Amino acid sequence: MNHVNPTSSGDAAAKTPAPSPALLFDTINAYQRTAAIKAAIELDVFTALADSPANADAIARQANASGRGIRILCDFLTVLGFLTKSGDRYALTPDSALFLSRKSPAYAGGTLEFLLSDHLRGAFHPLTDAVRSGRTAQPQDGSVTPEHPMWISFARSMGPLMHPAAAALAGLFALNPNRPASVLDIAAGHGEWGLAFARKFPAAKVVALDWSPVLEVARANARAAGVADRFSTIAGSAFDVDLGHDYDVVLVPNFLHHFNTADCVRFLKRAQAALRPGGMVAIIEFVTNEDRVTPPAAAGFSLIMLATTPEGDAYTLAEYSNMLAQSGFSAPRQHSLPASMNVALVATKS
Amino acid sequence: MNHVNPTSSGDAAAKTPAPSPALLFDTINAYQRTAAIKAAIELDVFTALADSPANADAIARQANASGRGIRILCDFLTVLGFLTKSGDRYALTPDSALFLSRKSPAYAGGTLEFLLSDHLRGAFHPLTDAVRSGRTAQPQDGSVTPEHPMWISFARSMGPLMHPAAAALAGLFALNPNRPASVLDIAAGHGEWGLAFARKFPAAKVVALDWSPVLEVARANARAAGVADRFSTIAGSAFDVDLGHDYDVVLVPNFLHHFNTADCVRFLKRAQAALRPGGMVAIIEFVTNEDRVTPPAAAGFSLIMLATTPEGDAYTLAEYSNMLAQSGFSAPRQHSLPASMNVALVATKS
Repeated sequence: MNHVNPTSSGDAAAKTPAPSPALLFDTINAYQRTAAIKAAIELDVFTALADSPANADAIARQANASGRGIRILCDFLTVLGFLTKSGDRYALTPDSALFLSRKSPAYAGGTLEFLLSDHLRGAFHPLTDAVRSGRTAQPQDGSVTPEHPMWISFARSMGPLMHPAAAALAGLFALNPNRPASVLDIAAGHGEWGLAFARKFPAAKVVALDWSPVLEVARANARAAGVADRFSTIAGSAFDVDLGHDYDVVLVPNFLHHFNTADCVRFLKRAQAALRPGGMVAIIEFVTNEDRVTPPAAAGFSLIMLATTPEGDAYTLAEYSNMLAQSGFSAPRQHSLPASMNVALVATKS
Repeated sequence: MNHVNPTSSGDAAAKTPAPSPALLFDTINAYQRTAAIKAAIELDVFTALADSPANADAIARQANASGRGIRILCDFLTVLGFLTKSGDRYALTPDSALFLSRKSPAYAGGTLEFLLSDHLRGAFHPLTDAVRSGRTAQPQDGSVTPEHPMWISFARSMGPLMHPAAAALAGLFALNPNRPASVLDIAAGHGEWGLAFARKFPAAKVVALDWSPVLEVARANARAAGVADRFSTIAGSAFDVDLGHDYDVVLVPNFLHHFNTADCVRFLKRAQAALRPGGMVAIIEFVTNEDRVTPPAAAGFSLIMLATTPEGDAYTLAEYSNMLAQSGFSAPRQHSLPASMNVALVATKS
């Protein structure tokens, strides 16, 4: 019997890493990560750990689940980085405490309703077909089909997570307090981007544009924020309806990535025309570097646009700058936003 | 307008990392990685890059796909680490060239047939139920249901990838050349673990045990390897059928993880009884450290056992040592295996 370890011998080992299928299997099996975080959120594992670390049996009692199931799930969540483990006790990381405990005001577990909806997740089943054809393999125009119901679940589930970024965005602006400023929020969804302006500027009026059933969600959020008297809506397509005029700010949150550059310019010209002289547009987006493969979250977003839209993309700063220049805007300034993979590009009407 | 970047200000930023939902979104969206590698393998993107780097349009022509689709897919594959990108040209990494080009003898794209089969992937749809109950939510006993058809697709698709590890395992042994050695391969599947012994030792006889329809695949592989005259089979359950006797080696590749420790001991006692005095057992397994959360590939494997079996697990070295001691074996020696997340635990009949 030869006990030489076959992976530690050989001349090549010193020069190059040993071949490994680890990344391949990790990627083929990546759907298991999705299943694990979904199960953990559904069973409220993170809330069970909100007050103190606990072992699997204690978590299982709170989650009404089995000790074996919780132990294996929590070990997997530890491997992924959602929990830490010391002895047999699991504890929340700071991010898990903030985003995954129901006791946190920033609880983001509700995002599953949209992010794992059949509309979104289902668009990846025929991904091979989408790569072949170069556009969504979903019916009609996928997520940009007029009145698509997925935007109702988007509006219902994605709002709370936007609070810190929306507040920070509003904090970048200093609207004139001597007259009632007006803000147009395009494809408003939950409405939180515009509502952050209504909260910060007590005289500001906010107009939210979206499909009619989606606006019901935004209106409910405006009532909850106590600003319903300064909140109004426009139902319909941002490419077709009358946008109004003399706005101080037009917000364009995660809207342009659904379209090709020509349509983005077509929309931005409409936004420009709706602004008062010196008014500003704020584009909130996934913006990739010129290489289109960094930063990872923004670059990876492009695949969602392939799966769900005819021609959308994650654009670069140069591409957005070019669209803005063609539409009568200054060069944009880029601002990062807290707790968000989005950045804000702010430009002034020329 | 205040242009202070809200994420770079504040006293706390210097002390702790800013809160980020990046890991959460990355994990919720992880199923998109699965879809991307599946599409890339189905479209043979990696083979299109086997001879030289190429841009998206050139790959698209070979893959009979769209330039937009390939560009977005290849950017995503670059983010994941399967490709590199320089300018607009993509190139294979060493691991992608080895495992994902059809021009490579180690091509592993065929593993999708098993790894993304409805049997395996489908077991993760009701993962929340499995955590609640502590066992597979699949019908009967999941993957350990007698004659389960998933093992046919396992045998058909997973064999090629095992070649380097199987050859290395056989290389650990020095069987007596003065008499025909015999090797029993438990739950043989494709049969490649046993066939590596038949290749290395020209007088060795190999007996493969598995469900009857699975053995057809192993027999075909034995014929292809030119060792059919030294290859025989036993159909049925490793817990019930007559295993034969006086084997030099019993191979137990990725079998024990499907069962609880008592059943593992029950099987190992049968293996011990089937060995000649001084014979050896080789357990090929995902073995976790005592913390059960490292190394990641072995620790993460436990979730597959929760989803697909009643009581299986990824066990620790101490647990396997204990099972072996209870079954009449020496303490095992652990050997890493090339191009594999498995290790081999080799123990001698006491």
